[in-house]
Amino acid sequence: MKIISQNTAFGGMQGVFAHDSKTCKGEMTFAVYVPPQATREPRPVLWYPSGLTCTHANVMEKGEYRRMAAELGLIIVCPDTSPRGADVADELTNWQMGKGAGFYLDATEAPWAEHYRMYSYITEELPALVREHFRVDMDRQGIFGHSMGGHGAMTIALKNPERFRSCSAFAPIVAPSSADWSVGAFEKYLGADKAAWRKYDACALVEDGARFPEFLVDQGKADGFLDNGLRPWLFEEAVKDTGIGLTLRMHERYDHSYYLNSTFMDDHLRWHADRLG
Amino acid sequence: MKIISQNTAFGGMQGVFAHDSKTCKGEMTFAVYVPPQATREPRPVLWYPSGLTCTHANVMEKGEYRRMAAELGLIIVCPDTSPRGADVADELTNWQMGKGAGFYLDATEAPWAEHYRMYSYITEELPALVREHFRVDMDRQGIFGHSMGGHGAMTIALKNPERFRSCSAFAPIVAPSSADWSVGAFEKYLGADKAAWRKYDACALVEDGARFPEFLVDQGKADGFLDNGLRPWLFEEAVKDTGIGLTLRMHERYDHSYYLNSTFMDDHLRWHADRLG
Repeated sequence: MKIISQNTAFGGMQGVFAHDSKTCKGEMTFAVYVPPQATREPRPVLWYPSGLTCTHANVMEKGEYRRMAAELGLIIVCPDTSPRGADVADELTNWQMGKGAGFYLDATEAPWAEHYRMYSYITEELPALVREHFRVDMDRQGIFGHSMGGHGAMTIALKNPERFRSCSAFAPIVAPSSADWSVGAFEKYLGADKAAWRKYDACALVEDGARFPEFLVDQGKADGFLDNGLRPWLFEEAVKDTGIGLTLRMHERYDHSYYLNSTFMDDHLRWHADRLG
Repeated sequence: MKIISQNTAFGGMQGVFAHDSKTCKGEMTFAVYVPPQATREPRPVLWYPSGLTCTHANVMEKGEYRRMAAELGLIIVCPDTSPRGADVADELTNWQMGKGAGFYLDATEAPWAEHYRMYSYITEELPALVREHFRVDMDRQGIFGHSMGGHGAMTIALKNPERFRSCSAFAPIVAPSSADWSVGAFEKYLGADKAAWRKYDACALVEDGARFPEFLVDQGKADGFLDNGLRPWLFEEAVKDTGIGLTLRMHERYDHSYYLNSTFMDDHLRWHADRLG
């Protein structure tokens, strides 16, 4: 593991690291915030998958999570959103596909299947690496994210309820199989057979029987992607009569920018801390 | 005034605006955060000059000031650090001179004197514009900044004690007349006669009789620029027996990055709010 940067912040350490990923077949970068408490004892860990076009850096710079993470003693891990590097397939003029748009799935179609394995990367390789290098309590894990990363957080939680105790999202894509900005990517990554898409779609996963105790979702009403990309009401519909809890908060005037995340970041971190103990 | 962007954040509004500046002879951009309280009544305003290489955007993205500004009801104005535009003189390979390095002074030497008038811009033109467009209480103004912007905040406060009720700084350049990274710029902007430099140097201003009630300064001990660029002990020495108060806090492990600012931002905003009433 290579140290890109380490800075003291709020009494803890904000680091950026890189490593050779076997899963994605290339170098991957990620950020970790370690709160001051982690020098004394293992601390709970929150995974934060980011949105389309982002790297680890967007939430690190604009998410405003460190103050409360330091107060609550939470380790925050922020992975990249796709494989990177010159030999990785891409669509240069399409921000909804390729680099920056991994959608937290394992691609099965050529040429994408070679590197685009973000599901396995985030659920297997990265946790092993983080466990090795940081004082994380792997019995206390939560996951949350923004937009495409909200989709990532919710699908990963639904598929791994034994591992994650808490999940939340800012403006998540809850039904990527039918959302304007993900249908094209899903077809290229996973093929034309939509049956294969269901395990990477939060609404479809719930319909197919996946369960998770409860979700917190914040969504801006002035979000330009609300009607065609995000549609949280579909998830509200999906969880009805399933026993899955959903706290869906719709906010007047908030858009799809990081200001939604930073404004409600404290609430999300407290939500996770309450459930991680 | 042109609206570049407006986003709801922490119940208030983070905006970015541009206007044709007569002082700097060209378009200037600045950011304003308006807390929710300002929809009901005029609120105190804090000016935040930024550091070398920055624009208005650095503190907007990394400063983490909105949560506390919303709580305390403070308007935060973040100007650019220099004139911009194709016809503005610059030294492309020198980050300590020209664009991004205006040093909050009015240049007197050619070719700089034509556009580089950041002192007049920040103390005259921009306040008039802000007063016109936002519900600011101009009887309650404070100023704070980072690095070169800390220098800007402290010199502007010392020269205008009747206007500003509070001043603070993160890692300020307190004696630019003799600091490694500003001597070259001062010579080009102001000429070889060092007498002219004194009115843009916080230590020299105090030696020459300028007074301000008190300053709060936070400085990281792991700051790579501490010994050659910042040297807060020179200001500590300068204010001795002057009646000027100085709260200088030296922090182990903190460097010159924005993590110093974000970590201690709440303290600074409370410091100003306490003095602005």
